[in-house]
Amino acid sequence: MTATVLVTTEQGICTLRLDRPQKKNSLTREMYDTLAEAIRAADSDPQRRVILIAAHGGDFCAGNDLGDFQTRRPGDKPAAWNFLLALADTQAPLVAAVQGRAIGIGTTLLAHCDFVYAEPDATFSLPFVALGVVPEAGSSQTLVQQLGYRRAAEMLLLGQVCDATTAATIGLITATTPAGAALATAQATAARLAALPRAALRQSKQLLRRPPESLHARLHAEIAVFQERLASATAQELIAAILEKRPPDRSKLD
Amino acid sequence: MTATVLVTTEQGICTLRLDRPQKKNSLTREMYDTLAEAIRAADSDPQRRVILIAAHGGDFCAGNDLGDFQTRRPGDKPAAWNFLLALADTQAPLVAAVQGRAIGIGTTLLAHCDFVYAEPDATFSLPFVALGVVPEAGSSQTLVQQLGYRRAAEMLLLGQVCDATTAATIGLITATTPAGAALATAQATAARLAALPRAALRQSKQLLRRPPESLHARLHAEIAVFQERLASATAQELIAAILEKRPPDRSKLD
Amino acid sequence: MTATVLVTTEQGICTLRLDRPQKKNSLTREMYDTLAEAIRAADSDPQRRVILIAAHGGDFCAGNDLGDFQTRRPGDKPAAWNFLLALADTQAPLVAAVQGRAIGIGTTLLAHCDFVYAEPDATFSLPFVALGVVPEAGSSQTLVQQLGYRRAAEMLLLGQVCDATTAATIGLITATTPAGAALATAQATAARLAALPRAALRQSKQLLRRPPESLHARLHAEIAVFQERLASATAQELIAAILEKRPPDRSKLD
Repeated sequence: MTATVLVTTEQGICTLRLDRPQKKNSLTREMYDTLAEAIRAADSDPQRRVILIAAHGGDFCAGNDLGDFQTRRPGDKPAAWNFLLALADTQAPLVAAVQGRAIGIGTTLLAHCDFVYAEPDATFSLPFVALGVVPEAGSSQTLVQQLGYRRAAEMLLLGQVCDATTAATIGLITATTPAGAALATAQATAARLAALPRAALRQSKQLLRRPPESLHARLHAEIAVFQERLASATAQELIAAILEKRPPDRSKLD
Repeated sequence: MTATVLVTTEQGICTLRLDRPQKKNSLTREMYDTLAEAIRAADSDPQRRVILIAAHGGDFCAGNDLGDFQTRRPGDKPAAWNFLLALADTQAPLVAAVQGRAIGIGTTLLAHCDFVYAEPDATFSLPFVALGVVPEAGSSQTLVQQLGYRRAAEMLLLGQVCDATTAATIGLITATTPAGAALATAQATAARLAALPRAALRQSKQLLRRPPESLHARLHAEIAVFQERLASATAQELIAAILEKRPPDRSKLD
Repeated sequence: MTATVLVTTEQGICTLRLDRPQKKNSLTREMYDTLAEAIRAADSDPQRRVILIAAHGGDFCAGNDLGDFQTRRPGDKPAAWNFLLALADTQAPLVAAVQGRAIGIGTTLLAHCDFVYAEPDATFSLPFVALGVVPEAGSSQTLVQQLGYRRAAEMLLLGQVCDATTAATIGLITATTPAGAALATAQATAARLAALPRAALRQSKQLLRRPPESLHARLHAEIAVFQERLASATAQELIAAILEKRPPDRSKLD
């Protein structure tokens, strides 16, 4: 048995690399478990500040391994379940690099990523209805919010395939890159994120990911965190540095 | 009295055609009742898989018949009420074809449709505030979600008229078509939808139409339906066909 | 001590003009209090139908005065708190004119405005995380809804600066104007809003600003207000005028 997800950490960036290119990186039960465990571990380690998801080979991810869909027992949670919970729970910023096909969960996992860069040959498709099933991974909610109902309906109900340029226009991804450059672009964003104050970044992401609520409720939720952050040594040093027109003392940050 | 809505069913597609062109298809109490009844009937009939809304004449729909606004008694629900509930409740996919003017409820009913195709001469306007009233049909919510607050405010607060090209860009409609081609385009999409697994399509639409909630709540809501669909004979036959590289046995579907 | 916010009212439009250009209109505790009071006063005065926010000098607003961030005691509500509540509570339509820099709360206050016009040199930036703090003023919710998650994450997590053209494309602002023309454009929109039926406009804004809910709940919330407005003398006169093909008797309106 060969490893099918490579996990490496360098300079605060934990990279999860799908490595089953001969099967277009379709995800098996074993791969889901590795991914879930790696996300949970990275999320709780102060040394790993950002998670980057990428893939080897010509395609990003062809979705759930179809064979696994035939072998499950009724009542089982799907193989992806722990992975989906890890994605939904993580406070670490997630960055992704996409080339070639992203199918089914290969696209819906991207909706959990905060920044997604794709090469010109990337395509995104969600053939749930055509397979007789329904959207998963929260995509019936995240994609409606990210793309708007019209584009989400085309992809999730009609199964329309979306190319990279359209994906960037409608907000499915952050931006397209030149061919071969998605990983480097994702790494550059990950490095920028890794250099930011860690608690402020994680708590900001949590606020952005909350479901909509009354404006008063959100104002109160934000201000509690804002006051706590403002009182931190990190914020006070950053503000003092600006007012004193000097670089911040980086040993006092985070 | 002449019929003012034509209801026909062919090949799984139930077409509701507004037919009061001399009054720009403005909607009377009688027309609302016919539409509500037809949607309820189509929705519960397994032979009618898709509902298509279109109109005869140069204009799609000039809104509520203004005379009806003068003759109501305080406390009455508006004439449109049953129609609006039918639109909100239907699980069947709704497709619409628009030409000429879509005014007031002529535009807000489109927000309930899953796919909307419009000809180049189509215009959309929501003169609620100018008439001294407020948005209806859920449009204060659906249009903010579909267009974003900025465009929704221009249309719903300022009463700005939107042309077909802009409507497609901002997500009010799915796409523009050549002149004279909205109905044919809507019919083509309806035919594609009618060929999809019926339960999976209807349940997917229901998921997409849920209001936003916590991501955990949505993951749980989706997975319950996903597992049920995955265990269905339809999904198992579709997956087996792919793995066995053969066409599915269509007699086993739905 | 000099006045730092100028409040004037003309033809139903209450204009709040930031006037601390030598400090790029960064907001002090005193300015927040003046703004909060002026919004509360305008909102409850039937003669002031629209609120317009603008600024003197080359920049719109450089954010919270940084010195004030150093002098607060733990547990204090921030200086902006009453201002934020006033923005969230106001039923009056808000219009803004922007030139030069809009930083931090200089951008997040715009998300509460219904119409925002910006000159070509306008830039929008949200350096909360870079300062060690988190989004405020409801921006973790309003900007995700207005821009979509991808653009909101670029601005709120990564701190990416947004120019005027991009801001109009992604829905951060309503439109760009020629150089020097933001105020005049905002005034023209304010004048159009001031001419609309006041109660219908205010109640429409309230509906548009509600958080998403079940479609049935929204239908009921809208229809209660709709019926009340429809029965008003204003609506009945406007509808009668259309049906009788005559101009409305403006003495009967509002």
